[in-house]
Amino acid sequence: MEELVIVGAGPAGMTAALYAARKGLRPYVLSEDLGGQANWSSRVENYMGFKDIRGSELMERFAEQVKAQGVAYEEGRVARVERREGGFGVRTAYGREHAARAVIVATGKRPRPLGVPGEAEFRGRGVSYCVLCDAPLYRGAAVAVVGGGNAGFQAAYDLLGSAREVHLLTDRLTADETLRRRVLGRPGLILHEGWVVKAILGGEAVHGLVATDGEGREKELAVEGIFVEIGLLPNGEVVEEAVARNEAGEIVVDCACRTNLPGLFAAGDVTNACGKQIIIAAGEGAKAALAAADYLAFADKAVKSVPLPVQ
Amino acid sequence: MEELVIVGAGPAGMTAALYAARKGLRPYVLSEDLGGQANWSSRVENYMGFKDIRGSELMERFAEQVKAQGVAYEEGRVARVERREGGFGVRTAYGREHAARAVIVATGKRPRPLGVPGEAEFRGRGVSYCVLCDAPLYRGAAVAVVGGGNAGFQAAYDLLGSAREVHLLTDRLTADETLRRRVLGRPGLILHEGWVVKAILGGEAVHGLVATDGEGREKELAVEGIFVEIGLLPNGEVVEEAVARNEAGEIVVDCACRTNLPGLFAAGDVTNACGKQIIIAAGEGAKAALAAADYLAFADKAVKSVPLPVQ
Repeated sequence: MEELVIVGAGPAGMTAALYAARKGLRPYVLSEDLGGQANWSSRVENYMGFKDIRGSELMERFAEQVKAQGVAYEEGRVARVERREGGFGVRTAYGREHAARAVIVATGKRPRPLGVPGEAEFRGRGVSYCVLCDAPLYRGAAVAVVGGGNAGFQAAYDLLGSAREVHLLTDRLTADETLRRRVLGRPGLILHEGWVVKAILGGEAVHGLVATDGEGREKELAVEGIFVEIGLLPNGEVVEEAVARNEAGEIVVDCACRTNLPGLFAAGDVTNACGKQIIIAAGEGAKAALAAADYLAFADKAVKSVPLPVQ
Repeated sequence: MEELVIVGAGPAGMTAALYAARKGLRPYVLSEDLGGQANWSSRVENYMGFKDIRGSELMERFAEQVKAQGVAYEEGRVARVERREGGFGVRTAYGREHAARAVIVATGKRPRPLGVPGEAEFRGRGVSYCVLCDAPLYRGAAVAVVGGGNAGFQAAYDLLGSAREVHLLTDRLTADETLRRRVLGRPGLILHEGWVVKAILGGEAVHGLVATDGEGREKELAVEGIFVEIGLLPNGEVVEEAVARNEAGEIVVDCACRTNLPGLFAAGDVTNACGKQIIIAAGEGAKAALAAADYLAFADKAVKSVPLPVQ
């Protein structure tokens, strides 16, 4: 039985792994990839210590640092985390089950995709899912934001400070009044209500999009950046039903990243922690590892015959 | 009136400044120094992105990144943060007051003193709270480190490179495995587990200490330097009485770093956030800035005539 399995190796999972390893816990990390969403940022300017770094490069640095601690890593998607006698079972999509006394779930979120031609092709070359990361790339340019909810309006608001022209496309406006008032009518903002993206156009990088009103009319917009803000989906389905999740599907944790099940921790974007940022997720990962270390030490104390893994 | 004043420029304060600046808030930062406690770490191995870096070098990188955003910075100690009409007053130790609509307090922690006879008397003459600053004074000498946590072990490790003999006194070992392995058993390291300092002895400078095991036994150790590493006290006295603090004196914040006073935020080691780590403090600083930005946008709506400070 593993002492600690960490599910996910984005900023939260990798930081948890480093902290756990330094606590002598020999964490076993299971993840589809190293870096997660952070890999998709062409420029990260708000991770402290690096003025400007590619998301993927930053994640490589995280990964090297974790590997240097000799952390066990297995690539693969985790299908399910469930309670078992004395701990948890972590089952991969290909059917192997790892037993663990404690688990940290750090599976992150995924952007809800548009699902249109060109989207996958131009990801990272004009198609972005993170305004905070990528807005500075489009200073003085024409850009589009897709999404009429709070995220879309916040994105448009953030872009209006630097972009020349912000096209906001949405099938329906659902953003808060506050946000609407802050954005609509601002110079540079062009609202396309009732229009949705049908295709993304480009060569080396994005140079436009095709929108449709759903009644046969189409128009083309010349933009260099397209920000998709139609929601994020937490990868929280991985945990069994007994784990408390909020309406958004996020795993509910306390300030030490503990879930409602003793021994099960969660960190980063998959949780209800505020702010979906690399630096925040990393901090939450450290908290989860420290809490897991406390939990395991306590569990060891309770089962008196099991010695602490210390020499 | 400033829009946002940030008090403190350690990992939390600097991260808050970067995030606030990127949100267009023009934060005004007031601090005694840049980097705070993090400057005292000779080796930081658990800040993600850097396998091994001097604390002061990491803090210089943080500072450069913040300065590149054109953030206003004033060096000086803040004596008091109090409510004022329309916001807060931030008074410096030399009597100048800055008015601000919102404030983020990130004043960190300071070393906890032993509270034994001789400690105050010999501070700076053998009693030290900063190994990085003072280790070179004790080359070839016998020294003592008080504290069995990570800070104590890191201190002992740093001193073993230059001191002849390092006595490590602690009532209880709580350091990470990695650090224990690096320190225990090293030539020159003498562990006194279960022993605490009762008094510090000296003439012109320190020449020894008296330790006790709490059961009436005492022993004297001949040392020239005593490094106190028994924890930290939050610099939370800076906020007015109306701000909720816990029994440890930490400012109580919610998951978005909001205190009980609207418009007043706190982040990092001065708060009740779990885990006193650079990466955690940085994450909390980001949360505080994002929450302050939300607060200021909302306040603008309430006072309709005030335009948002964004172009």
